[in-house]
Amino acid sequence: MTIAKKIKSSIANSSMIRKMFEEGILLQKKYGADKVYDFSLGNPNVDQPDEFKRELINLAAEIIHLKHGYMPQAGYQDTRQAIAGKISRITGLKMSADHIVMSCGAGGALNVIFKALLDPGDEVIVLKPFFVEYPFYIENYGGVVKYAKTKTDFSLDITAISKAINKKTKAIIINSPNNPTGKVYSKKNITDLAKLLKEKGQIYNKPVYLISDEPYAEIVFDDITVPSVLKAYPNSMVAYSYSKTLSLPGERIGYIAVNPRIYDGSDLMSALILCTRIMGFVNAPALMQRIVARLQDVAVDVKVYQKKRDLLCAGLAEAGYKFAKPQGAFYLFVQSPIADDVEFVKILLKKNILVAPGSGFGGPGYFRIAYCVDDKTIINSMKGFAEAFGECE
Amino acid sequence: MTIAKKIKSSIANSSMIRKMFEEGILLQKKYGADKVYDFSLGNPNVDQPDEFKRELINLAAEIIHLKHGYMPQAGYQDTRQAIAGKISRITGLKMSADHIVMSCGAGGALNVIFKALLDPGDEVIVLKPFFVEYPFYIENYGGVVKYAKTKTDFSLDITAISKAINKKTKAIIINSPNNPTGKVYSKKNITDLAKLLKEKGQIYNKPVYLISDEPYAEIVFDDITVPSVLKAYPNSMVAYSYSKTLSLPGERIGYIAVNPRIYDGSDLMSALILCTRIMGFVNAPALMQRIVARLQDVAVDVKVYQKKRDLLCAGLAEAGYKFAKPQGAFYLFVQSPIADDVEFVKILLKKNILVAPGSGFGGPGYFRIAYCVDDKTIINSMKGFAEAFGECE
Repeated sequence: MTIAKKIKSSIANSSMIRKMFEEGILLQKKYGADKVYDFSLGNPNVDQPDEFKRELINLAAEIIHLKHGYMPQAGYQDTRQAIAGKISRITGLKMSADHIVMSCGAGGALNVIFKALLDPGDEVIVLKPFFVEYPFYIENYGGVVKYAKTKTDFSLDITAISKAINKKTKAIIINSPNNPTGKVYSKKNITDLAKLLKEKGQIYNKPVYLISDEPYAEIVFDDITVPSVLKAYPNSMVAYSYSKTLSLPGERIGYIAVNPRIYDGSDLMSALILCTRIMGFVNAPALMQRIVARLQDVAVDVKVYQKKRDLLCAGLAEAGYKFAKPQGAFYLFVQSPIADDVEFVKILLKKNILVAPGSGFGGPGYFRIAYCVDDKTIINSMKGFAEAFGECE
Repeated sequence: MTIAKKIKSSIANSSMIRKMFEEGILLQKKYGADKVYDFSLGNPNVDQPDEFKRELINLAAEIIHLKHGYMPQAGYQDTRQAIAGKISRITGLKMSADHIVMSCGAGGALNVIFKALLDPGDEVIVLKPFFVEYPFYIENYGGVVKYAKTKTDFSLDITAISKAINKKTKAIIINSPNNPTGKVYSKKNITDLAKLLKEKGQIYNKPVYLISDEPYAEIVFDDITVPSVLKAYPNSMVAYSYSKTLSLPGERIGYIAVNPRIYDGSDLMSALILCTRIMGFVNAPALMQRIVARLQDVAVDVKVYQKKRDLLCAGLAEAGYKFAKPQGAFYLFVQSPIADDVEFVKILLKKNILVAPGSGFGGPGYFRIAYCVDDKTIINSMKGFAEAFGECE
């Protein structure tokens, strides 16, 4: 055996999605790109805000006078200050630059958090359905994934979470707005979770950390806001990414915001910074750190995504599909008309429609539509969706 | 215990260097920055090449029409093609984009490589003195560090390496030009190593991978060239960074180049790409990928570093210090006039000179000078260096 055994088996397991991806490319070659409706990837298709483009040009001109040397490993002080300031304004908490560690996106942030927290055998609660990378992120550091279900409307099931917590529980990860469901947890739902975690912390005499993965925090519809976990629960931290807010997925820029009231905060900050270093991230990319410092109140035009959601929901409802209408992100998690979601995904594939089976997200009987695509892809796919539904009746 | 036990102990162990760093800041406040001679960090101080600045401005203007969507996880095809083309020209090997994975610098590259290769208990040979992060990178994935010494001129000690190899050996990591010694391994030295690894591979019936960490490959003096390990040994890969070549340490851009003749190459490439993803790097920063594609034949003015080396070597030799003159990078590894290098570092500190004790690099009895500093820092420090030497006689 040459490569690591665990990696070898992970490659084998992830080959289904790759096969789907390759099949999509084949379909496009065969029928033409405009005849293939690819909803398989959460790749933002909305343009970057004009402010981003303007600041990039400004920065490129300024860079002639800037040093590109290594910075504090947590990131530039003024960038962290700008972020802390924004969070303070929103939450009323006293955040400072010392509570922020810049990261290579939310994926980098979560890996750094789990590396800092987990001893082998420590358990982390993951809610079904979940973002496919969470189990990897947790198992990378010897952590054990403990699954808990959500309710049928995808809200937090406090009873199920309560049952999943035991003395080995180190943390729970939540994701709101959610991938793959688009659910935004209500303020009451978050408050109830905070109450539970506080109780469990007292029972086991140690904190249960709440890790909130929030790359979609600004992508919300119908004027709702995402309740702050930092405000609701002291032992909390947020993993954030600008990938969706600024449509910059390839640039790998985000941060970890640690609650100023968190248990063992000073050790935890040292650990996060050390882990950023020794995992080879070293620091978040410098140029993007400088740009996001200037764009704290800028986001893509969310109405563009909202229109896509409305278009998709109306069409699918008319065709007979059942789903909970998403309040954020750009995913719709739809009930498969037949129990076997992988089978139904194959039926859609025959209509040149590519979606991801819910089984991959721990949500069998569903499929995920990533609707960050052109409006006409949505409109033109409706015939195929309707036909596929009809064939299952 | 809140944070992971291993991380807790790593923080405790790395506190000496941090204390030194903090002491430096205190000294600067007390005496003024120009009276403190900080040689402790390998932070490139040479300006970026003009070509970089020009291309950044070009790209900022072009970006208005570019999509920032996710790319193939290995990186942009044309960037990888440009890099493969350059390596092919230099080595005569048939490299293609399929042999390149873009990375968040060399630190990211090495973490991805070790994650892809190492099962718990697998051994990796590290040569003393070594870059301080290697043991972290290896132990991150359950690997076991096996140390082997180098010769007194810091060249490869083939006998010592031979003795360190056993059936658990998965890889050896070398670093040329070397941090902390500035050594560049000769072609014969590399050929001898290749011969040894080939023999050991036959004995144990499995490859011993040669991982060559080459962030300083372009920072070489006196018109020497760094011999190609890819050419010398099939089971080899290179971790590269543009941090030093383009003076971009904060931007986190580099690559893994995998030998086209490597054993189990297809599995290895899949593993490297998967690990880039699941460790949360996802992909190397997009904008910098686009820039380095255009700057394959551009590097900082190496003569600037060579002048600093000459200035430093002349001054220290005159003061009585003993060292092997470096052929590359921007480090000088100097014999401590007293056996206890940590003690001698404290003596230098009293002269407001900050250097790193060799013990931290597995080279006790030495200290490291990072001479990527202003010429006048070198010149003005000489009095203190001479005094410190005198006090030890």
